[in-house]
Amino acid sequence: MYTVSVRDHCMIAHSLQGEVFGPAQRLHGATYVVDLELARPELDADGVVVDIGRAKQVLGEVLAELDYRNLDDEPAFAGCNTTTEFLAKVVFDRMEARIRAGDLGEGAHALTKMRVVLHESHAAWAAYEGALAP
Amino acid sequence: MYTVSVRDHCMIAHSLQGEVFGPAQRLHGATYVVDLELARPELDADGVVVDIGRAKQVLGEVLAELDYRNLDDEPAFAGCNTTTEFLAKVVFDRMEARIRAGDLGEGAHALTKMRVVLHESHAAWAAYEGALAP
Amino acid sequence: MYTVSVRDHCMIAHSLQGEVFGPAQRLHGATYVVDLELARPELDADGVVVDIGRAKQVLGEVLAELDYRNLDDEPAFAGCNTTTEFLAKVVFDRMEARIRAGDLGEGAHALTKMRVVLHESHAAWAAYEGALAP
Amino acid sequence: MYTVSVRDHCMIAHSLQGEVFGPAQRLHGATYVVDLELARPELDADGVVVDIGRAKQVLGEVLAELDYRNLDDEPAFAGCNTTTEFLAKVVFDRMEARIRAGDLGEGAHALTKMRVVLHESHAAWAAYEGALAP
Amino acid sequence: MYTVSVRDHCMIAHSLQGEVFGPAQRLHGATYVVDLELARPELDADGVVVDIGRAKQVLGEVLAELDYRNLDDEPAFAGCNTTTEFLAKVVFDRMEARIRAGDLGEGAHALTKMRVVLHESHAAWAAYEGALAP
Amino acid sequence: MYTVSVRDHCMIAHSLQGEVFGPAQRLHGATYVVDLELARPELDADGVVVDIGRAKQVLGEVLAELDYRNLDDEPAFAGCNTTTEFLAKVVFDRMEARIRAGDLGEGAHALTKMRVVLHESHAAWAAYEGALAP
Repeated sequence: MYTVSVRDHCMIAHSLQGEVFGPAQRLHGATYVVDLELARPELDADGVVVDIGRAKQVLGEVLAELDYRNLDDEPAFAGCNTTTEFLAKVVFDRMEARIRAGDLGEGAHALTKMRVVLHESHAAWAAYEGALAP
Repeated sequence: MYTVSVRDHCMIAHSLQGEVFGPAQRLHGATYVVDLELARPELDADGVVVDIGRAKQVLGEVLAELDYRNLDDEPAFAGCNTTTEFLAKVVFDRMEARIRAGDLGEGAHALTKMRVVLHESHAAWAAYEGALAP
Repeated sequence: MYTVSVRDHCMIAHSLQGEVFGPAQRLHGATYVVDLELARPELDADGVVVDIGRAKQVLGEVLAELDYRNLDDEPAFAGCNTTTEFLAKVVFDRMEARIRAGDLGEGAHALTKMRVVLHESHAAWAAYEGALAP
Repeated sequence: MYTVSVRDHCMIAHSLQGEVFGPAQRLHGATYVVDLELARPELDADGVVVDIGRAKQVLGEVLAELDYRNLDDEPAFAGCNTTTEFLAKVVFDRMEARIRAGDLGEGAHALTKMRVVLHESHAAWAAYEGALAP
Repeated sequence: MYTVSVRDHCMIAHSLQGEVFGPAQRLHGATYVVDLELARPELDADGVVVDIGRAKQVLGEVLAELDYRNLDDEPAFAGCNTTTEFLAKVVFDRMEARIRAGDLGEGAHALTKMRVVLHESHAAWAAYEGALAP
Repeated sequence: MYTVSVRDHCMIAHSLQGEVFGPAQRLHGATYVVDLELARPELDADGVVVDIGRAKQVLGEVLAELDYRNLDDEPAFAGCNTTTEFLAKVVFDRMEARIRAGDLGEGAHALTKMRVVLHESHAAWAAYEGALAP
């Protein structure tokens, strides 16, 4: 299995609801350093997993929808706790939709797996990974 | 699959028995920077894999049992080579026992996989990963 | 010159006022991974720059005053742009006050220089450094 | 499953053929920071996955075949795009051949999986992983 | 003294002339992960060292002049060994010229010091730092 | 001012004497990831600060004198607390002696400053820096 990964980041405000979150129930924020990993069993005719330039471009666009925002005000997340693991799935889902729409090129339809990691500090991170339907 | 990871460290002395270890047969030591990764297929009602505060707390307690010690003197490791990969399994087993005892909360019983990585330098690390019985 | 450094972090929300900040004028947030460097020309009788345990403890307390907060609501920062470089100076000043109050121990009065670095992402950071009056 | 990983690097020149590569069609170069991960279900009698000294030695030898070279001039890669993912597979294949030849020791025949990661910058990396036949 | 730093990278081919370089006399290449640090004693009215967006933009433009190129073919470097330390000075000089031309904004004229670090691998880097004339 | 830096590591056991060290009074150990930074105002005729190959070689030899050892048993450190900052000075002094002996080449006599950083974990490090007499 081949994988290719790119890194970008976004900076958001939010609060988390529930006693388990302690002081994180207050409005605070985070920088998420985001790693996107894309996998497929064989390389394409150019010798790549996917056009890495497009992957960076689309990851940047997906993160721009979150960047410099207070996630408590985003209708898409109403009633949700925007935890790091939850947001990893959000980025996964939005990237998957962009892949299906052809925004990473036709070759991206051969991708079989994707992993999204959000680093919230030097000492904590969360991820979501799943299969990509052909 | 969702994962959440936390990082901590411990500092130990030990020696390794066997010609394969060369100069590491002498009493020496290591800082282990330890990454604990916990996985489950779905998030809980709070939107998390596990209470990360508890995970950090318990990982710190498990590492405190090793920290600032000469592992050659630990009865638990008598007759064992406390290699990095061996110690990754020790941390795995002790974390698993703490999870079963309920120390990471009831939600932690939904965890299905755990991975423990011990970084022994900027250029070498070892890990143990395995399934967690429900 | 000897230095010792410790790393911690805090997670805050804020907004920045001024056209130069573009989308960062919106309420957003950041994780700051904070490095504290303390310097003195000679080691003390124990062979250290400062009691590193106390340094970690006090840095943690200083960061706790910022952590999990919306800095726009902090009276101490009214009328200020809480940029990364500005906050590096805030941490510097608060650490300096704690050093003068003796909270890092008597030996800390021999410190001659301090540097505070705030990493806001994998690709940007800011710092403040200055002399410490004897 | 146990794994052990070691890190090394090499520095190469090359060019990539195909419109998808944009400016990377020109002769340029890269530092690849290479992580080699070796896995097996149980440790050997010494308590290790593999003799890490030998693993480092052989990885260094495999990378030396690429290091300080213009890959466009290497007969082995004629007609191939030496992308990061392609080169991850090259390192995988050459390490596998060395393992089969016994160069990592007899114990290395118990390895069941290998992963090779090539970091091309702080923000992009690629990998190849696969099973090792017993 | 306040500093702000941004990170970017470029990928080049080159060869080095002189027995001291051993195998690096052959055509090879490097990824340089580049850190630009800008310093000034006081913040501007916005609370910043410099407009970080402009700093990133101009650093990217300066690196684009090197990126995806064989430096052996660059007239600007004829007769020079494009070592990591030499290239740190090249980036320094070109950034200084851009600062003087006003490309980082008027406030950048208050900068008093600059440091450019080029990381050539996980285990080696070089830097050039110097004063900026007011 | 130009600098060049190389990274290596060593793994030692030791104990520290004095109440301030708490549990570190017990025999334990550390991995030190060591950064050596060498500075001079102008490059030599080859365009380098120093022959980096020799610098790596000599740093490796200096660290080999500490590596895989219990520092409590080293006569050179009798009566000393081998703290991270103390050991940074030890490496500094031993490197300086090697430079004066000509082991980094004649060009190394033009070095004016050296800095040695010892990282003891992902969250703590110490350094010693000083001028090098011409």
